[in-house]
Amino acid sequence: MALIVQKYGGTSVADTGRIKAVAERVVSTAGRGNQVIVVVSAMAGETDKFERLAGEITDTPDEREMDLLLSSGERVTSALTCMAIQKTGHDSMSFTGRQVGIITDSSHTKAMIESIDASRLKEALDEGKIPVVAGFQGINEFSDVTTLGRGGSDTTAVAIAAALSADACEIYTDVEGVFTADPRIVPDARKMDRISYDEMLEMASLGAKVLHGRAVEFAKKNNVPLIVSSSFNQSPGTLVTKEDGDMEKIVVTGLAHDKNQTRITIMRVPDSPGIAATIFDAIADANINVDMIVQNISSDDNATDLSFTVSKKDEKRALEITEKVSNILGSRGVSINSDVAKVSIIGVGMQSHFGVAAQMFETLSKAGINIMMISTSEIKISCVIDVKHMETAVRALHDSFNLAKV
Amino acid sequence: MALIVQKYGGTSVADTGRIKAVAERVVSTAGRGNQVIVVVSAMAGETDKFERLAGEITDTPDEREMDLLLSSGERVTSALTCMAIQKTGHDSMSFTGRQVGIITDSSHTKAMIESIDASRLKEALDEGKIPVVAGFQGINEFSDVTTLGRGGSDTTAVAIAAALSADACEIYTDVEGVFTADPRIVPDARKMDRISYDEMLEMASLGAKVLHGRAVEFAKKNNVPLIVSSSFNQSPGTLVTKEDGDMEKIVVTGLAHDKNQTRITIMRVPDSPGIAATIFDAIADANINVDMIVQNISSDDNATDLSFTVSKKDEKRALEITEKVSNILGSRGVSINSDVAKVSIIGVGMQSHFGVAAQMFETLSKAGINIMMISTSEIKISCVIDVKHMETAVRALHDSFNLAKV
Repeated sequence: MALIVQKYGGTSVADTGRIKAVAERVVSTAGRGNQVIVVVSAMAGETDKFERLAGEITDTPDEREMDLLLSSGERVTSALTCMAIQKTGHDSMSFTGRQVGIITDSSHTKAMIESIDASRLKEALDEGKIPVVAGFQGINEFSDVTTLGRGGSDTTAVAIAAALSADACEIYTDVEGVFTADPRIVPDARKMDRISYDEMLEMASLGAKVLHGRAVEFAKKNNVPLIVSSSFNQSPGTLVTKEDGDMEKIVVTGLAHDKNQTRITIMRVPDSPGIAATIFDAIADANINVDMIVQNISSDDNATDLSFTVSKKDEKRALEITEKVSNILGSRGVSINSDVAKVSIIGVGMQSHFGVAAQMFETLSKAGINIMMISTSEIKISCVIDVKHMETAVRALHDSFNLAKV
Repeated sequence: MALIVQKYGGTSVADTGRIKAVAERVVSTAGRGNQVIVVVSAMAGETDKFERLAGEITDTPDEREMDLLLSSGERVTSALTCMAIQKTGHDSMSFTGRQVGIITDSSHTKAMIESIDASRLKEALDEGKIPVVAGFQGINEFSDVTTLGRGGSDTTAVAIAAALSADACEIYTDVEGVFTADPRIVPDARKMDRISYDEMLEMASLGAKVLHGRAVEFAKKNNVPLIVSSSFNQSPGTLVTKEDGDMEKIVVTGLAHDKNQTRITIMRVPDSPGIAATIFDAIADANINVDMIVQNISSDDNATDLSFTVSKKDEKRALEITEKVSNILGSRGVSINSDVAKVSIIGVGMQSHFGVAAQMFETLSKAGINIMMISTSEIKISCVIDVKHMETAVRALHDSFNLAKV
């Protein structure tokens, strides 16, 4: 008997009709002799609705309150999904993040899971129940509700799968798996049968929204096999797993893009030791993630331009902080550009192949696209470009690296 | 410095504009040197929406799951209200039922409060914060979420006021106070300045929806002064308090009506000891409240007709149970009538006045209205009549007892 964790995203539980379909899929998995734990997201649109309501009240909602607000959506879905499973005649029981023993740190709206006490889940499974867990949430040491950030329900599912040594963690969404590029932009993008954790991690962090990055990290660390597939049909999906020999033959596995970026530049900041630390400590203190950082070499005036990117949602706060620090440091000023996008190529094979970066830059150059920032890791290369060229860039790179063919 | 608990109902927090208005009222009360605790209901329509969603999935939702579902609405409002108070510059903090230490029994969807641990609330007050509590909910001994039944946020407010020995508990709603009758039916209905707990208790249990009956009971037991008023204007409202000498001079204080009634009759049930107990034990076991019970005297066949009323929401389950028991007891059958209403007159002065019942029956008779069931207590008389005559009955009684004048 296998233990399977199934996570259903917002579009998979968008209305009561979809929730009933989820219940059928769950019960049919159980009917094949498996133990099943279900993790659900908020119904599509609910989280946006909560953010809109908060936005009508204040531009700077308190994050503790935001978490209480946001966590409500998943609770609603878990109760409704549980009812739908019970309606089929199968025993079922809902669990909030707290009831499933998910303890997080206190970084409200982007909390990290510190521990899970799965005893109540085990008990429910032993009693033949199908547990339905509200994803995305936990509580901190003060017993306050926390949330894990957008897509956090994936992390809930993987964390539960890891805690209970589940045989698989199935992530159901509205796409059939992980594609070489976004099929809405690249019509001949191809669904991959498998992808390594590391590649998936890069895809996720670079803007491919199919899986939450932290979930992939958690899965890698605990070696939980992840299967990404659609809840709208029965196609097999993409297996996210450990690297194997075959994978390394492919140089570039996939492309990712991300429009949710803003570039902030501090102009002519004095080039002395500790400057970068001063700036990025201040930003980190505000719990804002900085993505790419580029510092040019110092010129005659012994000053330099320092650029970095943050998520659009953080741009207002990041700008405030940067302007404050910029004043203290005596730089010339701060500029901001929200019309940027990041395109990236990913592949474990890159490690043993030369010329991949050059091919990327040449492809973009031939398409007449200027590169603003570059960042590389062992298995990915990212370029920040003008957002208006993003789709052109993605299509050109998909062609250039021949991703439509296996 | 007074401690005031303010409870805002669904229409008072119907949208973010209304929530901001609530925040202003709260902060202005605090600005006059008071400590304030806020208790909020779900935004108007939310609870209905949850019930509709559950209804789309199953006719018989599990009550534990129903509670998780229903409790979400108040959490949302408490977070938003807290943000709105913070936006004014005042410190504030939200509390769920669990965080405020409300422990209930396990009667899901109509749980009773067993205890409150107000230490976290006290701490927040001591720190100068305005606590905003999600009404209507608690947790049971298994740490599962429970709800207190429709209108349960009133009870939350009074329970907190009692636990903290608050100076007053203000209940804000969309009406200006307690009226002698429903102003939508009786245009010259009059707002009362004060009413006794007992009268308010009867008004509430008899269908005047302005206050939750359990809340009034709680307030009476703990001698918490209740003030019912509108959050839409500044009129003074109605004070619900202990009886005083003046009150007794008025024979009939107010009228109530209730369309949410169904009459169930068991026909020709054998008239032997223990029969009533058998029937009503079975119904009580299903957690259904029976309101009025009428048993006629036994006729020649040593059998009797037994009628009782239940809330419309319970009629399906009550009918099922009654039919089961009826078969076992060998009665002739069960009939059901959903087209009934209850009209009631209430007044502590009734205790020392004769002829009040006679005047009520005569008034209804003159209006050509047939009485199906009668039930009396020391301070109220209720009649079940055909629902189509309800408004006529209420108007006739309001005239007959001269309620438009003080």
